[in-house]
Amino acid sequence: MPTLHDVARHAGVSIATVSRVLRGISSIAPDTRERVLSSVAALGYAPNPLGQALRAGHINAVALLVGDIEQGWYASLARDMQVALEEEGMDLLLFNLGHSETRLREVLERAVSMRLRGVALATSDHIPGAALEPVRARLAEAGIALIAVGRNLEEIGIPSVAHDDEQASRIAVGHLVQRGYTPIAYMSRIRKSATGRVRFAGYLAGLAEHGIARDPAMEWDIAESYRFKAGYNVMRDAIARGVGMRSVIAGSDELALGAMAAARDAGLRIPEDVAVLGFGGLEWGGYVRPALTTLDADTSAFGKGFCTVLKALAGGGSAPPVSLVPRRLIARESA
Amino acid sequence: MPTLHDVARHAGVSIATVSRVLRGISSIAPDTRERVLSSVAALGYAPNPLGQALRAGHINAVALLVGDIEQGWYASLARDMQVALEEEGMDLLLFNLGHSETRLREVLERAVSMRLRGVALATSDHIPGAALEPVRARLAEAGIALIAVGRNLEEIGIPSVAHDDEQASRIAVGHLVQRGYTPIAYMSRIRKSATGRVRFAGYLAGLAEHGIARDPAMEWDIAESYRFKAGYNVMRDAIARGVGMRSVIAGSDELALGAMAAARDAGLRIPEDVAVLGFGGLEWGGYVRPALTTLDADTSAFGKGFCTVLKALAGGGSAPPVSLVPRRLIARESA
Repeated sequence: MPTLHDVARHAGVSIATVSRVLRGISSIAPDTRERVLSSVAALGYAPNPLGQALRAGHINAVALLVGDIEQGWYASLARDMQVALEEEGMDLLLFNLGHSETRLREVLERAVSMRLRGVALATSDHIPGAALEPVRARLAEAGIALIAVGRNLEEIGIPSVAHDDEQASRIAVGHLVQRGYTPIAYMSRIRKSATGRVRFAGYLAGLAEHGIARDPAMEWDIAESYRFKAGYNVMRDAIARGVGMRSVIAGSDELALGAMAAARDAGLRIPEDVAVLGFGGLEWGGYVRPALTTLDADTSAFGKGFCTVLKALAGGGSAPPVSLVPRRLIARESA
Repeated sequence: MPTLHDVARHAGVSIATVSRVLRGISSIAPDTRERVLSSVAALGYAPNPLGQALRAGHINAVALLVGDIEQGWYASLARDMQVALEEEGMDLLLFNLGHSETRLREVLERAVSMRLRGVALATSDHIPGAALEPVRARLAEAGIALIAVGRNLEEIGIPSVAHDDEQASRIAVGHLVQRGYTPIAYMSRIRKSATGRVRFAGYLAGLAEHGIARDPAMEWDIAESYRFKAGYNVMRDAIARGVGMRSVIAGSDELALGAMAAARDAGLRIPEDVAVLGFGGLEWGGYVRPALTTLDADTSAFGKGFCTVLKALAGGGSAPPVSLVPRRLIARESA
């Protein structure tokens, strides 16, 4: 490998001058600058890892696109993705989409111009398939893998590592039926979330498995995100309307905690009057009282799964359309 | 701006050949490769944004170094840093240190070799000042700003944007004294955390302000991180030992929730038997029951403050040694 010293000798200038040219300092005479750059090229000197990335055509990083980094599941995912990528010598660029489709397109364009290794798409929002086609073509052309993490985008041809959320909802319904907590309400984003639709389908399948007729009054499609306040408001309103649910499956631990707060503020006991079950397995769920019964999230499996798919695609091979990660029920006090 | 076409004509090769040389494809004859690279240098052609970054000497991104991304405060900080950086056209690289000094040094070395714009140091762990001197010199030489976020590293010459945690602890003590919740125990990392020492100093100052003598039995220096389990274990043991505290100031909302769970599992009522006050203002604190009284964290102020200091340093100017962000008390039910 040629050194900075070799370049300086070849160009007949000092090491400091070479360094200043490479750092883009503008006070260097144009002919000196050109002489240094010619020597850099002639010797094949790589000034730094960026130079190496430039030759290889890629920067050794992966973009993680999350819907809302403050949601606990995304924070855990970011941690485990970072750990898994680091083991492969890659860095993590974090982009918070804030549930915006426009921002999603902008960030994918950014991944192309930055020539990243890959993109992990981890928002649960609706993906505008047609609107993304041009940028997906540019990603493919640049050899940048686009992989869905935590959701299944098999239907639009994006390799996916996802939870088996249909099965998870059926596990939840089975648990609540077994404890006698019927009728079971379902609280989550449904129509505006792809993941939400899969879970809702599992809820309906679970009811059918136990011979329970569906009841539209028990199907709460929330318009807001999966946060505490939404859970609080929807539960408070359901209690006020006298819906009569015996338990609630909530689409996130945040929704579940919000629902528990609303129930208790209305004088209801958990689980004696109403049972609440969450999705996510966040750590605080074990420390609230009553402790939260929830379906866990295996973010560690996602970090590893993403890297496996990325390496398969980078090697010119193919990846399975979808790899499903099961959720386990963590049965505590709330349901 | 010269184009790929200009380079091809200058070197007397096809556009495809130029493209292959720039992508590092090895099947190109060495003399052809050298001719293309000489033309690239002679014309000053920038193949892509990475090339531009290479000339400017920097990649337009900032590394955020956090202690533990799953801790709610770091997740909020990551979100608000990302928002603030994006407004300045910069990207966020997230590094999770996992409370390791070795990893801290490695990541700082990485920032040098990647030629980032800056590094936001946001771990609350002890910073090994002497051990970092070599890498700090390399950061300075490369023009990469090192800025502490969420803690005060003024004493080792790192410009800092930090909470006024000394004042925050005094506010907490004042609140608990006013409600009659004495004696007041203090539960946090103290000796092994710089932030912890500042807060502890504020606790002692607060006691002194109210004429209360300090009592070593009330000073709980936890060895673990600021997580739920540590709060649970320390509180459970204090109750078992019969320490007799009337309230607890916990160093994070996670420690506070763990402490509340231990108190309730021991049959104590909150706040009637023991009051608990946290640090952090995390959103779930408003939804647990009893709702958590806590000192808020202004992560939005940190994102903006970091960018202000970064721009001051990038312009060759100086930054104030420390910018302090006040914490407000959010008084709810737990204390």
